[in-house]
Amino acid sequence: MREVAIVGAGMTRFGEIWQSSLRDLFVEAATEAMRNASADHLDAMYVGNMSGGQFVGQEHLGPLMADHLGMAGIPAARVESACASGGVALRLAFMEVASGMSDLVLAAGVEKMNDGADVTAVLASAADQEAEAYHGITFPGLYAMIARAHMEAYGTTEEDMAAVSVKNHRHGALNPKAQFRREVTLEEVMNSSLVAAPLRLLHCSPVSDGAAAVLLCPLERAKEFTDRPVKIIGSGLATGSMALADRNEPAFLDSVSLSAGRAYKMAGIKPSDIDVVEVHDCFSIAEICCLEALCLVERGKGGEAARSGLTALGGKVPVNTSGGLKSKGHPVGATGVAQAIEIFEQLRGESGDRQVADASIGLAQNMGGSGASSAVHIFQRV
Amino acid sequence: MREVAIVGAGMTRFGEIWQSSLRDLFVEAATEAMRNASADHLDAMYVGNMSGGQFVGQEHLGPLMADHLGMAGIPAARVESACASGGVALRLAFMEVASGMSDLVLAAGVEKMNDGADVTAVLASAADQEAEAYHGITFPGLYAMIARAHMEAYGTTEEDMAAVSVKNHRHGALNPKAQFRREVTLEEVMNSSLVAAPLRLLHCSPVSDGAAAVLLCPLERAKEFTDRPVKIIGSGLATGSMALADRNEPAFLDSVSLSAGRAYKMAGIKPSDIDVVEVHDCFSIAEICCLEALCLVERGKGGEAARSGLTALGGKVPVNTSGGLKSKGHPVGATGVAQAIEIFEQLRGESGDRQVADASIGLAQNMGGSGASSAVHIFQRV
Repeated sequence: MREVAIVGAGMTRFGEIWQSSLRDLFVEAATEAMRNASADHLDAMYVGNMSGGQFVGQEHLGPLMADHLGMAGIPAARVESACASGGVALRLAFMEVASGMSDLVLAAGVEKMNDGADVTAVLASAADQEAEAYHGITFPGLYAMIARAHMEAYGTTEEDMAAVSVKNHRHGALNPKAQFRREVTLEEVMNSSLVAAPLRLLHCSPVSDGAAAVLLCPLERAKEFTDRPVKIIGSGLATGSMALADRNEPAFLDSVSLSAGRAYKMAGIKPSDIDVVEVHDCFSIAEICCLEALCLVERGKGGEAARSGLTALGGKVPVNTSGGLKSKGHPVGATGVAQAIEIFEQLRGESGDRQVADASIGLAQNMGGSGASSAVHIFQRV
Repeated sequence: MREVAIVGAGMTRFGEIWQSSLRDLFVEAATEAMRNASADHLDAMYVGNMSGGQFVGQEHLGPLMADHLGMAGIPAARVESACASGGVALRLAFMEVASGMSDLVLAAGVEKMNDGADVTAVLASAADQEAEAYHGITFPGLYAMIARAHMEAYGTTEEDMAAVSVKNHRHGALNPKAQFRREVTLEEVMNSSLVAAPLRLLHCSPVSDGAAAVLLCPLERAKEFTDRPVKIIGSGLATGSMALADRNEPAFLDSVSLSAGRAYKMAGIKPSDIDVVEVHDCFSIAEICCLEALCLVERGKGGEAARSGLTALGGKVPVNTSGGLKSKGHPVGATGVAQAIEIFEQLRGESGDRQVADASIGLAQNMGGSGASSAVHIFQRV
């Protein structure tokens, strides 16, 4: 397999973007990624998207987006793994370049959630329809059960979870693309309305519109497009039991652990080698569980990570410097690619006020549903 | 890139299958494919599916299907390109094996259309939502316009199109998995009710439930799984303008032509080398247009192909020996994989009453929407 680099990135602002349609968002991000790398063509394209059909009545995003990007003709397809759709798009683009099949491949993600659909019901179709969604449970409820299991097993507290939100909002306040560019206090989180006990509003990521895109090529060609390519040194994808009730330990995310193990092995690195991390904090408890499954903290120790400052900017392992899903926003199909962009920019030294000093290896972890799928990528400065 | 073979195949009957859910259909086909190759594990899996979300409220089919197949843990993702979703799943599995990333990869497709959804509206989400579907046009209308354009340009007649249906039903009558196992006469087609002039009911493929799966591995390992592997020698994917109104010549399918050109080039063969063909006859006019874009007949000569017997069993280029989408059925996400299975079985000499004598090279062409995406694969007996 060939070595693969990211040479360009582009993303829209995340948020309620009423003036742009699904295709507008995609084209904005994709055009910016191509311009960022001075690329005038693409050999192929993957579009990560969870629910264009249910959200805005539009499937078939491969050709639609290629067409609107002025690239009709190229091989293009949509991939879906619920909220991990972007991570899977990145993996497929990586594989297509690594295989030698294509040189210039765009990995993009896009979602338009604020367009009138019943968002909670649509998102519930990422859970097990027969065993979960049909009976009325939605994602705040599923993650609330994960939170309860973690609290029971390890003594994690509501304040521990709130500290994740406080940290991510502090980071997101520094990110011009973030949906919520403001800090929140521990008291605000703890006093926000209950959504599904013990999860409160400020433990939950928002409903967002947005798109993100990165351009990949063989490492040996990277200098044609940028002076500062970032190498993808590991890619791991894994699945786990779909229904929470089928899992041995709901507080531990098997798919995250498996996908991380595969990515670490491919990259030939240890968790302690990593300088900057983006994880899938769709709910604050998710960040806690993901840190453990990624072996960035010991099992059961995720709760104290944000509280102790370990995972803050300036801490030993800065996590979600972008603001994470909580503050940056979570247009579900775009999230995995946006995470890769944060790491790409960190490793290039382009993160401004959020810059992690001298970051050379970064990791992005993107999850679907209540953790039934997870994609992990590891990146290295060249 | 490594050479890749198909070593096993499985599919459900296609039709109105009220007693099986989306996951049941998938598991039946996938299990049969694995048993067919005596495989006890998978390294990865792709699930082609157009609209699980809109049809049955279920997205996130990668992990769901891996879980229900007893394979939770493996990398798995859903891919979508409308009715070409199965063809794209096959291409990605091919690429994953060719790249050296994985050895045993399942390419599957599944759709459950008979479960209460407004099927015509869901399918319309494969068209351009803003330029087409929003204004009320559905697929029979789009293909009716393609038919009108072909009739105008080349003198193609309603009888020419009807001859496609007659041929495909004759083939499908011999296929135990087909939805409609009966012949129809030219008169029956010509007297069937108008759906969108000039297309009549018997010019249209049906609404179907079903699943299909094939197992891929490196050619060098194929003999571990079967004595009769079939090599994938070409894979081409292409896109074209999404909206019919944006095309230079609506009667010519650019994406089919492009994808075929790419597959022929990779395979190093000419159209005249092909012994058996499956094309995407979602409407009878589509078979006519696809034959031309695949260079199996001259441009403008597709209309006479079925009428003259050229494309019938026993003819020079047998097309849709399975019965095609028209007679075998068209569970949209499964179709591309089912086409590959027909060619796989033909090249192994397993097609019984439909067997094409001494077939050594076959082609399958799978299309999305009104032709905005097309996947072509070429297969060779080893």
